[in-house]
Amino acid sequence: MEDTHYIIKKVQAIRGFTGAKLSLIHVVEPLPGYSYAYLGIEDIEGQLIKESHEALAKLAAQLNVSLEDQWIEVGPTKLKILGVAENIGVDLIVCGSHGRHGLSLLLGSTANAILHGAKCDVLTVRLPE
Amino acid sequence: MEDTHYIIKKVQAIRGFTGAKLSLIHVVEPLPGYSYAYLGIEDIEGQLIKESHEALAKLAAQLNVSLEDQWIEVGPTKLKILGVAENIGVDLIVCGSHGRHGLSLLLGSTANAILHGAKCDVLTVRLPE
Repeated sequence: MEDTHYIIKKVQAIRGFTGAKLSLIHVVEPLPGYSYAYLGIEDIEGQLIKESHEALAKLAAQLNVSLEDQWIEVGPTKLKILGVAENIGVDLIVCGSHGRHGLSLLLGSTANAILHGAKCDVLTVRLPE
Repeated sequence: MEDTHYIIKKVQAIRGFTGAKLSLIHVVEPLPGYSYAYLGIEDIEGQLIKESHEALAKLAAQLNVSLEDQWIEVGPTKLKILGVAENIGVDLIVCGSHGRHGLSLLLGSTANAILHGAKCDVLTVRLPE
């Protein structure tokens, strides 16, 4: 949550500077079939999607982002983010990176994958420790 | 040169928006000792440094960057860029990425290294093909 707050501040600053349109995306990674039996919950994915919608709606209200600029996708995070970015023609993807390991910073695997696959600029926001 | 022009435009836009101070860095990678004998040139490094100063001065004039914000370093590119960034406390490193290989974009190894080691935000500018 603190991370989200930190990125929100950056995003708001960029929007303030540029007047750019902001889209929000949240990706729900599908669970393998056996996890349903194992966890004893019938529709985890449906539950996750419902919760994502609620969380994203809250964030969107905070950031004044209209419903058509909110994206909930189900699938591999990297592909879904890159796919939506390309479909709607974004100029900049903003994502956070965190996690210090020994002397060097380890990028989140999603941030890394986005960066390598993006056809647009990518701003990697270094999250505070 | 086209790449430089493309990044310059982005950097100027960011500076226009934010009023941020701009520093320029160019790193000369040291050559192994044997290359001197092999290439028959006595002071390649000195020559490279001299040329770097000239190129950077030209760019600095174009971007209105004063001499104390121009950095020529000799050593491993990644370490020098990260070192200067940390020493002078930059908020954002801007670097280019290019090179399409098959279906996915290959980041330059320098851009990649900077991104993984940076303690600040990194803007990776996707260079046009």
